[in-house]
Amino acid sequence: MERSKIAALINSAQPIDKILVKGWVRTRRDAKSFSFIEINDGSCLSNIQVIADDDLPDYDQVRKLTTGSAVAVTGELVASKGGGQRWEIRADEFTVFSLAPESYPLQKKRHSDEFLRSMAHLRPRTNKYGAAFRIRSELSFAVHQFFRERGFRYIHTPIITGSDCEGAGELFRITTLDLMNVPQRDRAVDYAKDFFATEANLTVSGQLSAEMFALSLGDVYTFGPTFRAENSNTRRHAAEFWMIEPEMAFCDLNGNMDLGEAFIKASVRFIIENCQEDLNLFARFVDKTLMTTLENIVRSDFERLPYCEAVAILEHAKKKFEYPVHFGSDLQTEHERYLTEKHFKKPVIVYAYPKSIKPFYMRMNDDNETVAAMDVLVPSIGELIGGSQREERLEVLENRMDEMGLPKEPYWWYLESRRYGTVEHSGFGLGFERLLMLVTGIRNIRDVIPFPRTPGSIDF
Amino acid sequence: MERSKIAALINSAQPIDKILVKGWVRTRRDAKSFSFIEINDGSCLSNIQVIADDDLPDYDQVRKLTTGSAVAVTGELVASKGGGQRWEIRADEFTVFSLAPESYPLQKKRHSDEFLRSMAHLRPRTNKYGAAFRIRSELSFAVHQFFRERGFRYIHTPIITGSDCEGAGELFRITTLDLMNVPQRDRAVDYAKDFFATEANLTVSGQLSAEMFALSLGDVYTFGPTFRAENSNTRRHAAEFWMIEPEMAFCDLNGNMDLGEAFIKASVRFIIENCQEDLNLFARFVDKTLMTTLENIVRSDFERLPYCEAVAILEHAKKKFEYPVHFGSDLQTEHERYLTEKHFKKPVIVYAYPKSIKPFYMRMNDDNETVAAMDVLVPSIGELIGGSQREERLEVLENRMDEMGLPKEPYWWYLESRRYGTVEHSGFGLGFERLLMLVTGIRNIRDVIPFPRTPGSIDF
Repeated sequence: MERSKIAALINSAQPIDKILVKGWVRTRRDAKSFSFIEINDGSCLSNIQVIADDDLPDYDQVRKLTTGSAVAVTGELVASKGGGQRWEIRADEFTVFSLAPESYPLQKKRHSDEFLRSMAHLRPRTNKYGAAFRIRSELSFAVHQFFRERGFRYIHTPIITGSDCEGAGELFRITTLDLMNVPQRDRAVDYAKDFFATEANLTVSGQLSAEMFALSLGDVYTFGPTFRAENSNTRRHAAEFWMIEPEMAFCDLNGNMDLGEAFIKASVRFIIENCQEDLNLFARFVDKTLMTTLENIVRSDFERLPYCEAVAILEHAKKKFEYPVHFGSDLQTEHERYLTEKHFKKPVIVYAYPKSIKPFYMRMNDDNETVAAMDVLVPSIGELIGGSQREERLEVLENRMDEMGLPKEPYWWYLESRRYGTVEHSGFGLGFERLLMLVTGIRNIRDVIPFPRTPGSIDF
Repeated sequence: MERSKIAALINSAQPIDKILVKGWVRTRRDAKSFSFIEINDGSCLSNIQVIADDDLPDYDQVRKLTTGSAVAVTGELVASKGGGQRWEIRADEFTVFSLAPESYPLQKKRHSDEFLRSMAHLRPRTNKYGAAFRIRSELSFAVHQFFRERGFRYIHTPIITGSDCEGAGELFRITTLDLMNVPQRDRAVDYAKDFFATEANLTVSGQLSAEMFALSLGDVYTFGPTFRAENSNTRRHAAEFWMIEPEMAFCDLNGNMDLGEAFIKASVRFIIENCQEDLNLFARFVDKTLMTTLENIVRSDFERLPYCEAVAILEHAKKKFEYPVHFGSDLQTEHERYLTEKHFKKPVIVYAYPKSIKPFYMRMNDDNETVAAMDVLVPSIGELIGGSQREERLEVLENRMDEMGLPKEPYWWYLESRRYGTVEHSGFGLGFERLLMLVTGIRNIRDVIPFPRTPGSIDF
């Protein structure tokens, strides 16, 4: 007999004579001549309630069931007389796969997020983290569906790279050299002896590679892991996280903004429509304002304004910021959140940033002072998207690289794309975990990643 | 005016008065009073033919168009009088974004795969590689759709790990230590000073992490990059490749085989149904037997036989193998291909392998000699899937680790999953690039990866 998943049973249209459920015991309550057992199989947030009468063959086994024990139950799916659930199971057979000992850490009580981080291998068994990782899965699918419906191709850009896309440092080195005996040549590491015969790092962005494919296949996107060796322990940073990076040929900054706005709205809408039960948990217990925030995002036309106007608003704001703002300063999270939460009360797209605070590949505006960059800011998160139109003019790009002191040789292939059939193109990067934090209200990035990697922390 | 993609135009149901197309010139042929220009925009294999009359405003620009130049065309979509295409565009306006110089490497002629590998940034602009990477994108989507329809959750298991799943070595080390000045302590590298305060490597498999989620959420899968620092230059090996790893709670080896068979069939069927045009290219120019191979896979019941029977067949085979076979030897590609291509002439699942050639986590059979492992072998590839039922009995697992000399401390969390509510569970790993090689007939793994990483090779 094939097992039924609880997600299917709780939505059953009618009673079912005979079903088989397998899962883990959440709680057991004993009455005089029967027991209630709540079973969860991870397919959804809800448990299914099982009623085991004392005339069951193995009823003494049932009386021993502890939280976390694994069981199989066959029986009848019947309308529940008790409140709180539509269906329950009247058991006719109980098989105990394994009894969890009393030391099982996830006893029925509230555990702190810190405590649960120390057992990342068990926390998806809790309501909150089960829900978070089911939403993570659904949101991933929403990403692929969104882009595929629009004719985008998914590209797996390399994780191990020889180049540093942002020129920003903070790289993890990859090597097979013996660290107790690093070969040297001319007073430097002799990378010729390393696996790739040169320096190799973990990628910080797939953008430059994705551009090559946009200039071939048209609309493409990446969705994969990226890395920052940033030694900072904050709620917003992890050493390993997933990024979504669409890249579009024949697309200018306006088209880029349109895509970013459409993507965020579609993602939020997908979760509201497809993850109702799990989302409710977060709206009730994690962030009371969650649904208001999400509905505001879906309904609003995102405000679009140039960086200089954003700075003017911040300069005139009554709020005192930790970091003062003036033209030329990078916006901090406090500024971004002020703009989107307090001033406009909806998502905001800031564009035309000073070239001095942006990377080399962004397209120079005619003022020769600002570049065709855009950031999308959303309530409760701040910056969710950073993107730009790319510099497609070879000469302008090379001049900019010279100005910034970047070597051109490692970028020969990137520059070739501007030599052969160059066209305007645009794209952006979106941190997948930030999007997850937005839709769940979870405040710490460690709590939306199955096994988070942060400085000094690589357990599991 | 919004641009139309060529993929949409070639399937248009009727003529269209006014359209805008943007793309790259593949060829230009001049007649006396007009020119034919073939344009491709990467949305599909087909070009669209444009007819530019000499009374166009910028007709002298048109006469300069070279292969690889980027253009925009507005005009009318009309039925084509020539053979070979249903629709063509009668241009009324031509904009040249950029002219490709004569040095553009992708002139209209056949280029070798080796040559194109040296320009991985341009090769997706060719018919063959455009088709390969469109199929890669569609096949990725097929993976997600297959699992989601069956209620599986997608899990992002970590790329940076402290553990070595297979215990097989061949690891890439990750570090932020200064390699010119590696800190030491007690005559060893002082990893306490490294980013994660311990040794860190690139993952070789997400399985152990995925098991934790199967034992929480039920059915899960991973689909992400994995790494092998294997210093071998073969057509089948890359240092970085993508793996698909489903893991199912309450599932034994038979269920595992069923899933593997269903997955391969569904993937092949998806490509046959959704990538007809691109697939035809491979069937015509790359592998004449491709469609026969694929249809055989979709139609066959996969043969299932224990390892000992497979060995007996190989021992009695007339073919002389490079590596002789006996009970206890690992099957080589030549053996796998003999079984699936010559002997059974269809996909084969070999199960119950000797424990001596399999990793510690596979479930011990009652004979205490073989484990509940299974490999799926397919024509033209050999091993496509390797999987097993996992050892869920704590004591048996610990004994096996002792037998193999594995330290238990790094696996404390893995062992805990057997202490708390352990249940039978199974899963497998499938190399995504091998699946792609199967469906395209491409014989070199370097040619199905956007920017392949192999020993000594990390360009782009």
